Amino acid sequence: MKNFNLIKTSGKARAGELVTSHGVIQTPVLCPVGTQASVKTLTPQEVHELELKMILSNTYHLYLRPGIDVIQKLGGLHKFMGWDGAILTDSGGYQIFSLSRLMNVMDDGVTFRSHIDGSKHFLTPELAIKYQEILGADIIMVLDQCIGHDENRDKVYAAMVRTHYWAKRCLEAHEKPDQILFAIVQGGIIPELRKLSAETLTTMDFDGYAIGGLSIGEPKQQTLDITEYTAALLPSDHPRYLMGVGAPEDIIECVGRGVDIFDCALPTRVARNGALYTKSGRVDILNARFREQAEPVENNCNCYTCQHFSAAYLHHLFKSKELLAYRLATIHNLVFMSHLIVSIRNSILDDTFETYRQKFLTDYKPTNEKVRLTQKKKWLEARARPE
Amino acid sequence: MKNFNLIKTSGKARAGELVTSHGVIQTPVLCPVGTQASVKTLTPQEVHELELKMILSNTYHLYLRPGIDVIQKLGGLHKFMGWDGAILTDSGGYQIFSLSRLMNVMDDGVTFRSHIDGSKHFLTPELAIKYQEILGADIIMVLDQCIGHDENRDKVYAAMVRTHYWAKRCLEAHEKPDQILFAIVQGGIIPELRKLSAETLTTMDFDGYAIGGLSIGEPKQQTLDITEYTAALLPSDHPRYLMGVGAPEDIIECVGRGVDIFDCALPTRVARNGALYTKSGRVDILNARFREQAEPVENNCNCYTCQHFSAAYLHHLFKSKELLAYRLATIHNLVFMSHLIVSIRNSILDDTFETYRQKFLTDYKPTNEKVRLTQKKKWLEARARPE
Repeated sequence: MKNFNLIKTSGKARAGELVTSHGVIQTPVLCPVGTQASVKTLTPQEVHELELKMILSNTYHLYLRPGIDVIQKLGGLHKFMGWDGAILTDSGGYQIFSLSRLMNVMDDGVTFRSHIDGSKHFLTPELAIKYQEILGADIIMVLDQCIGHDENRDKVYAAMVRTHYWAKRCLEAHEKPDQILFAIVQGGIIPELRKLSAETLTTMDFDGYAIGGLSIGEPKQQTLDITEYTAALLPSDHPRYLMGVGAPEDIIECVGRGVDIFDCALPTRVARNGALYTKSGRVDILNARFREQAEPVENNCNCYTCQHFSAAYLHHLFKSKELLAYRLATIHNLVFMSHLIVSIRNSILDDTFETYRQKFLTDYKPTNEKVRLTQKKKWLEARARPE
Repeated sequence: MKNFNLIKTSGKARAGELVTSHGVIQTPVLCPVGTQASVKTLTPQEVHELELKMILSNTYHLYLRPGIDVIQKLGGLHKFMGWDGAILTDSGGYQIFSLSRLMNVMDDGVTFRSHIDGSKHFLTPELAIKYQEILGADIIMVLDQCIGHDENRDKVYAAMVRTHYWAKRCLEAHEKPDQILFAIVQGGIIPELRKLSAETLTTMDFDGYAIGGLSIGEPKQQTLDITEYTAALLPSDHPRYLMGVGAPEDIIECVGRGVDIFDCALPTRVARNGALYTKSGRVDILNARFREQAEPVENNCNCYTCQHFSAAYLHHLFKSKELLAYRLATIHNLVFMSHLIVSIRNSILDDTFETYRQKFLTDYKPTNEKVRLTQKKKWLEARARPE
């Protein structure tokens, strides 16, 4: 396989190209999240205009609704949702373990109940691949076993071993050559398990490697340390995807630790809560200081939202719970992220990444760690409730 | 004043031009509803692309949130919401009587409690005009007293007399010559009161006349009869606006009874519930028959939604409560209405309106009357609850 070309490094940061069936993707890359075959609030054309080339969608959600069979009949996921860019599908592993009501995890597969209607389902590594082949994503993921960040070593070890076993079966089940298959390195926050996981999986012939099981409640520094440690264990000629990490400050820190691919559920999710990214950090548009602000949320921002509307209008839309609010905020945050990743890539190509990183982090005040963890916990709890 | 030019009639149907400070509006015209300074889910640019030239916004809602003072500081309603087409603002009368908790109606004005936070407010005819002058709408409405469709004659009479008194005060208070002021004919479903109301108001120097107090729960035939009766009492060289009537079959029936201006809250509201207009009538996109339909909701529809997405995808978005669903459905329904009104106007210009009307109503199956009244009742109840 030669789906990935490493073009340039700057320190540990990498600029590359990922060759997919729906175009060449320049890395580092951010994938906006279209969990249920829609990047929330946006049309595919708008996502395209934001210069975002690859989206993340989710096998678990699509399997439950509308059903893999429906998407198959409608000609695959690209056609179904009207998106001709690249798609990465997650296998459903993370969702089964975080969102559904888990029934039973066996070596053969996992039994779970739908978070929508409580119906019972059984997923195996082979089925996870089959479903993703039917969906027709450009990058597909192995089925992995996810566990909490605070589980004991024995549990982390057992889940990791099962993940390796499942990865092997996914590799064997994988048939379509136009789909890139990624393994997922697990091992929690225990470096020697991460090492064992990376070594085991890199002996198999995967097209790329993901780092899973992070940003699920552990302290930020630990996320960064384990990312750095794990990324260094992965082959440099393969793409690396850090799953579920997507705050601006995390992106730049983790590019600096050797990661190529990110999904960004966070920028779109926080947008819908009125949290907008600016060069100096996240602002809460519901704050009273925006009530009469004739200027946009961020001066000199060239996004559609800031070019057309005052912060006061956006504040009003959020206060009034107008649906346009969520859309305008989503556009702003995705443009912010899109600019960020382009700037990062350019700084790697110029070999000025470290300077850019320091400059960005000097200006950008990250969300308070305690607030962040509380928000994360609340979100994890909220999504675990049935609809 | 010469804000309205009657160009052609076909039976009682009229084609005209309404000259506003933000462009010449061809009538009959439909105004999508941007109650809170946003046509729900759409950007102003999108509304513009749908060939809709005038929107309806609401003084009551904007007075409560963000506040008239805020919009004044932000440069008026057009600038605030980024819309350079025409705007019609309702005075707030209908909302005070249907949405807020009414406290006290006196000749001087009306005291009410906000449906948002229960705060107490006082509105007079003079204030209603002042607020609308600050908002800067192109067409503004007098403050009127609205009552239920099943009130007794004495109450209908008293509210009508007060509406006339308030109308006179609004006329005297009105100062800005670039704003067109409409009176509102009341009188419930009692023809002789409608006659009295029309006669009283047409002796005053209003720029246009609205027919108020209809489509609030009375049987459809009564809406049509009173509309026809009242429209015939209004001067032919002034524009006529039928408030709150917006279903496709009603539009065509009421154009045929001499109405020029409609607002269409209905097409956008039902869109968000998954009711989509087609040539043969409203369809419920949540119906299982759309689950695997590869064709769009309506073949040969040139709206963005039907040009890009299958009915199956739209069905999935609604099932999944994806925000994009509401937007795509809104676009479809507004394009349907936009085409309808253009076809109506062309048929008037060709003097083939009656043929077009019969053809349209043969194909289009209106919503069942009982279902319609139940939905209307539910909607009225739901919006009367505080947020």
